[in-house]
Amino acid sequence: MDATIPDSHADLLDKPAFAHMACHLKDGSILCNPVWFTHRGGLLVVNSAVGRLKDRALRRNPTVTLCISDPDNPYRYLEIRGRVETITTEGAETEIDQLASHYLGVDRYPHRRQGEMRVSYRIRPERVVAFPKG
Amino acid sequence: MDATIPDSHADLLDKPAFAHMACHLKDGSILCNPVWFTHRGGLLVVNSAVGRLKDRALRRNPTVTLCISDPDNPYRYLEIRGRVETITTEGAETEIDQLASHYLGVDRYPHRRQGEMRVSYRIRPERVVAFPKG
Repeated sequence: MDATIPDSHADLLDKPAFAHMACHLKDGSILCNPVWFTHRGGLLVVNSAVGRLKDRALRRNPTVTLCISDPDNPYRYLEIRGRVETITTEGAETEIDQLASHYLGVDRYPHRRQGEMRVSYRIRPERVVAFPKG
Repeated sequence: MDATIPDSHADLLDKPAFAHMACHLKDGSILCNPVWFTHRGGLLVVNSAVGRLKDRALRRNPTVTLCISDPDNPYRYLEIRGRVETITTEGAETEIDQLASHYLGVDRYPHRRQGEMRVSYRIRPERVVAFPKG
């Protein structure tokens, strides 16, 4: 299985673009909504808060798919199926500020909720589909 | 569970916007990519071709989630978890032309492949999340 992001679509990792992230819920249904992401050392990185629906889902089942569509051309996308390899709160507060800088152009993430603890997921790509091909 | 599309987000059904559709693959991973859709009588309607990965996945497991993000505001979306209620080839050729008209402004779907048979999925919403709320 090909887990490499082709050069033709590598720009989608840095654009910034949103990823639609899908993961398994306890009842057999699928959670799917837009998330910020970044990448580091070949892994995709997503940030949430401890205890949220997404956090509970990913701790239960690390299988995840991210679809990154080009905001400038909805017919161009990367679909990355993979697995959450690491879940950590270490560095997750700094990371959400970096994501806010990338996506919103602000120094500090403005939507923190009282008492929430940020958490970071590192996702290993296992299967990559790039559309259109080449 | 609330399966109603709130008035605040009803425009997303007609915009046209893309849906990121997620469904279960045989190996336990999730297929997630952008699709055209329409709606009819409270059901979401998606079109594919018989025998494709998506078609095989939906025939095996009808559990599906569509996330419809506002192309004009990526922080605004509808997440619709539901179930494929009907799979039919009847009317599916006309339907893909209607979708092409809605999304591309052309009379006839231009990407038909030799020998393909179009197929229509009618999806019953079971759980709707609208963001931001009201």
